[in-house]
Amino acid sequence: MNKKIKAGIIGSTGYAGGELARLLLQRDDVEIVWYGSKSYADQKYGSIYQNMYQMTDAVCGNEDMEALADMADVVFTATPQGLCASLVSESVLSRTKIIDLSADFRIKDVEVYQAWYKIQHPSADFIKEAVYGLPELNRESIKQARLVANPGCYPTCSILTVYPLVKEGLIDPDTLIIDAKSGVSGAGRGAKVDNLYCEVNESCKAYGVASHRHTPEIEEQLSYGAGRPVTISFTPHLIPMNRGILVTAYASLKKDVSDADIREVYHAYYDKETFVRVLPEGVCPQTRWVEGSNYVDVNFKIDPRTRRAVLMGAMDNLMKGAAGQAVQNMNLLFGLPENTGLKQIPLFP
Amino acid sequence: MNKKIKAGIIGSTGYAGGELARLLLQRDDVEIVWYGSKSYADQKYGSIYQNMYQMTDAVCGNEDMEALADMADVVFTATPQGLCASLVSESVLSRTKIIDLSADFRIKDVEVYQAWYKIQHPSADFIKEAVYGLPELNRESIKQARLVANPGCYPTCSILTVYPLVKEGLIDPDTLIIDAKSGVSGAGRGAKVDNLYCEVNESCKAYGVASHRHTPEIEEQLSYGAGRPVTISFTPHLIPMNRGILVTAYASLKKDVSDADIREVYHAYYDKETFVRVLPEGVCPQTRWVEGSNYVDVNFKIDPRTRRAVLMGAMDNLMKGAAGQAVQNMNLLFGLPENTGLKQIPLFP
Amino acid sequence: MNKKIKAGIIGSTGYAGGELARLLLQRDDVEIVWYGSKSYADQKYGSIYQNMYQMTDAVCGNEDMEALADMADVVFTATPQGLCASLVSESVLSRTKIIDLSADFRIKDVEVYQAWYKIQHPSADFIKEAVYGLPELNRESIKQARLVANPGCYPTCSILTVYPLVKEGLIDPDTLIIDAKSGVSGAGRGAKVDNLYCEVNESCKAYGVASHRHTPEIEEQLSYGAGRPVTISFTPHLIPMNRGILVTAYASLKKDVSDADIREVYHAYYDKETFVRVLPEGVCPQTRWVEGSNYVDVNFKIDPRTRRAVLMGAMDNLMKGAAGQAVQNMNLLFGLPENTGLKQIPLFP
Amino acid sequence: MNKKIKAGIIGSTGYAGGELARLLLQRDDVEIVWYGSKSYADQKYGSIYQNMYQMTDAVCGNEDMEALADMADVVFTATPQGLCASLVSESVLSRTKIIDLSADFRIKDVEVYQAWYKIQHPSADFIKEAVYGLPELNRESIKQARLVANPGCYPTCSILTVYPLVKEGLIDPDTLIIDAKSGVSGAGRGAKVDNLYCEVNESCKAYGVASHRHTPEIEEQLSYGAGRPVTISFTPHLIPMNRGILVTAYASLKKDVSDADIREVYHAYYDKETFVRVLPEGVCPQTRWVEGSNYVDVNFKIDPRTRRAVLMGAMDNLMKGAAGQAVQNMNLLFGLPENTGLKQIPLFP
Repeated sequence: MNKKIKAGIIGSTGYAGGELARLLLQRDDVEIVWYGSKSYADQKYGSIYQNMYQMTDAVCGNEDMEALADMADVVFTATPQGLCASLVSESVLSRTKIIDLSADFRIKDVEVYQAWYKIQHPSADFIKEAVYGLPELNRESIKQARLVANPGCYPTCSILTVYPLVKEGLIDPDTLIIDAKSGVSGAGRGAKVDNLYCEVNESCKAYGVASHRHTPEIEEQLSYGAGRPVTISFTPHLIPMNRGILVTAYASLKKDVSDADIREVYHAYYDKETFVRVLPEGVCPQTRWVEGSNYVDVNFKIDPRTRRAVLMGAMDNLMKGAAGQAVQNMNLLFGLPENTGLKQIPLFP
Repeated sequence: MNKKIKAGIIGSTGYAGGELARLLLQRDDVEIVWYGSKSYADQKYGSIYQNMYQMTDAVCGNEDMEALADMADVVFTATPQGLCASLVSESVLSRTKIIDLSADFRIKDVEVYQAWYKIQHPSADFIKEAVYGLPELNRESIKQARLVANPGCYPTCSILTVYPLVKEGLIDPDTLIIDAKSGVSGAGRGAKVDNLYCEVNESCKAYGVASHRHTPEIEEQLSYGAGRPVTISFTPHLIPMNRGILVTAYASLKKDVSDADIREVYHAYYDKETFVRVLPEGVCPQTRWVEGSNYVDVNFKIDPRTRRAVLMGAMDNLMKGAAGQAVQNMNLLFGLPENTGLKQIPLFP
Repeated sequence: MNKKIKAGIIGSTGYAGGELARLLLQRDDVEIVWYGSKSYADQKYGSIYQNMYQMTDAVCGNEDMEALADMADVVFTATPQGLCASLVSESVLSRTKIIDLSADFRIKDVEVYQAWYKIQHPSADFIKEAVYGLPELNRESIKQARLVANPGCYPTCSILTVYPLVKEGLIDPDTLIIDAKSGVSGAGRGAKVDNLYCEVNESCKAYGVASHRHTPEIEEQLSYGAGRPVTISFTPHLIPMNRGILVTAYASLKKDVSDADIREVYHAYYDKETFVRVLPEGVCPQTRWVEGSNYVDVNFKIDPRTRRAVLMGAMDNLMKGAAGQAVQNMNLLFGLPENTGLKQIPLFP
Repeated sequence: MNKKIKAGIIGSTGYAGGELARLLLQRDDVEIVWYGSKSYADQKYGSIYQNMYQMTDAVCGNEDMEALADMADVVFTATPQGLCASLVSESVLSRTKIIDLSADFRIKDVEVYQAWYKIQHPSADFIKEAVYGLPELNRESIKQARLVANPGCYPTCSILTVYPLVKEGLIDPDTLIIDAKSGVSGAGRGAKVDNLYCEVNESCKAYGVASHRHTPEIEEQLSYGAGRPVTISFTPHLIPMNRGILVTAYASLKKDVSDADIREVYHAYYDKETFVRVLPEGVCPQTRWVEGSNYVDVNFKIDPRTRRAVLMGAMDNLMKGAAGQAVQNMNLLFGLPENTGLKQIPLFP
């Protein structure tokens, strides 16, 4: 067997970090050399995430990127906005690869980043180099990258659902409205009243209306597809379930576009993709059918009365929306088959 | 004390029927004289809905509208489409009032009804007479009615959220997209695999895309507001919770319409309404804050980048979306204060 | 109409405090004169509990028992252990009545209190005077009380399920094991990781095994019934639901005790009680049938093979287990019918 | 690579059957040659369990054990009681191995089986040959078996939690009370009102009190440990979650038994076991930490006041409680490492 890939995780005790650890611990070809955590420093990882009890004896350390750059072949940063950007440097990138699960390097226009995230970007010089880590769009660039900006959960599901139709000119991007629904793990593991069981259970709400930070990220990628700036409406909703994102997108069809045209484009883009499943006609994506896996299920329905297309995508926000996609990117960085360690069949029920 | 109102319920063992019984049993001025149920005939009502154990000794009977017309001052039909229409007659309506919770008399154009519901209407002559039982729009007509078509759950929430802005010309109705989310009680109490706990829990899906039967009902009422035919996109979603509907509606603003304009219209329409609460700026409606009550909470946000308004409404689908509204209509029919028996404060958590 | 009862709530923004406000706001004969809250001082109550939006304009105040004693006819303390005990005094009790929802005055033996709660009791002199506010056991004493110790949630459900059989000598109290299951609202509204949606949902656990503080409270009351000290096993479990407690109790039958004997005793104790329902033979209590109401449903099954009785009780922890019972006690203190403001039929589904 | 194991599944569209398919489809060394289903015959398997869409093109067939015996190296029967017993024969067993997930061959005393299951056993001759498939107890016999009786979900969790202490004489088996809590998938995928989302959600109940069919199965295995007949109290409860069983067992300690004694026995029995994790002192098992895996987490607490031990076990009912254990048994039958295809780390959240 080859040498194992040495992986470090900064922010290993959030939900995305925990999912990363779970995925990597199941692999024979990867060794986790660092479980970083500010909140749980010096505690045993297996006592925090007891699902991994007996699978690791590791104790959480703090966030020393310098030390980590020497120890690890790849560092995952599953941390709040701004942290990865404050740790990256030429010296670090010359020694290790970084897959950043935060938003720090996702948006090419630093002004846009700063306007939506309300923070000063401490290392804007590296934005240009960073590759947006959506393999279905940027596979070849990812393979060459030192710094991968792992996409947000809503953007991953939204872009994979909508991009092919924008790119191929089947829908009018100016009419695009994305109504997204997410499970609660997307809100993170911080102790907030709003995320208590009794506050979320038996309820449904929109949040971040007309102001959610994933909006410009979606718009940027769709703009590349459209070949011109695209502005969308994006509304996320909180749903009482642990995992899962469902995207329902609405857009006016371009003249004469038919059901068959859309189906053909979806298949052209995704039949070769391991992790995107185009569902049969009439079958709506449901988050239960992708839970615990790296799949995105997509489908659509044309409303002939309004000449709009309703595009739908379902995904596990912690897998393809965070840790699964990060592992997919790691596989690309290290020349491995893209689905290594990602063959989990969705868990149902 | 005056004579009690004698009420009969046909379809008393579905969720809407059960909610009706719960509401009426708490009143001193109403007596339930008939608990109709095809599925549970001859069984004690309090053994089926054990929440009402010891509150009634009644045994379920079947659906004899003729007999009921003599016994009851008002008959609620909480039954599948087509049943009420098959039971109504001049003779029945001359003896009792009917509040129909099915769709049979909601849509004025019988062709539209038959096209969407795929059934022949057996008593189309009464459609004209029937009053659409949304008190906030039709209060005065309801008071005079013999036959009230109690609105559907999605239409109630959608219309109350959207109608004022359509009527006052603040939004372009041709751009209207309604993305709705519903708890599972809306799917009824029939024993279907799709509604089993494990099939619904931890999942989210769209259904009836571009084909849901509540679409023409919403369109008809909005058309009255617009003064011309309105065609909308409507997509319902199933959410893992018992009760609650959340409507998120999107529409392009008419020229120069401001935040203040919309707020003013909402307040003009609803400040005098008992059951519609316009929330303070920046507060999104959540289904948890209306559960178990007859309230609809509405609010909105303008997206200045797209010049669209995002309109939101939250409601309990079994209360204002079904039984609560039916009781509100009954109150109007009998000249009672509209909120009689409907003063429940939402239950939280 | 008579003068309204003026009620103050200290700790009005916890779940029990919110439930109290909800119950009292629905009454014509009570006025809430004080919404105390340390965490939300100076915020509008209706912005914290938005279910009560537009029903009160009150702003939360802090915990000034002295001032409150002059303003209020009754003060509810829905606060952490130790607080009420630190505020009570002869001067206060000479001016107002106190219904304490904490454990401070539930246990007569101050040593036991201090051992289980690990705090020094600051006003042990008042323990003797306090009346344990379980109306089904202590109705007459409650009517005369100045200080009512409102029972804990687990104790209420456990005692009402088990007490009659202990008192009548049908079961051997030394064999008594109580396995209880509670919804998450029992854990309070504090922002703790353990109570986050994703930590509780899709899981089940025991906690406080052989050490839960409600144990001595249950034991004390059962000891009165047995006429000698009773020691029990008590294990609470956390269940992914908002409300509800289910108690499953096991005890060996005394010689020759039959099914009919137990049924007879239950009916003798509870047929005259408004809030305890003895279910028909073979029907197990379920929390869904009592949610949102002040009812406790009880039943039992004898296992002839082991000669043990399995006793079961179901209750809403925020109603009969906290706020509902507090209101029941208030009704007794003020000479009102015991079910005033407590006639809610359980909400289902 | 060696020849693949050819596996047939009768009853592949129930939840246990679906989990079996999911586990086996992820393996390179197994081929599923038959997806049996009475309810969904002739439908594509991937259209029923859409989590497996695109992973198999198989169409469901019916239950032809004769044909299957020729095609398959091993047949799993995940079917209602009585079916496997009606299909087994010497001819079949001479050609294939059977792992029966029903109760038909779990209980050695056919009278007991018939009394609890209320059906005549059609092939009692094979009961003696059948091996009770709990590898932690019967590993060596399983390896040699033709017919494996895969244990029930409650028995698996109960026995693994309790057996070592019974066998080593640390607890008095006559005092044993098992209070179990299960997720809803244990109730199967049949379309019953009782298992609808709205009936189960936000509720908790005991069922099958003093009469659940898993009782004699648990008793039989514990009797082997005790060396004499053991009679227990067993009460299952339904919990609103998809997966998971939690067992809380109570028993009086034998004289002088200490905490250390119990811990030592647990470790002696389970330290060498792959799938049983003895948790650290003070840590209670929770179903969330085993979901989606084949692990059983066990621990205990001694109550010094009552001299009872509280024993706790948590498990995924579809994995170690059904399909996972069946695969573990298959591995033993075919001489494979016991954890082949069962290395999934529990999914959280």
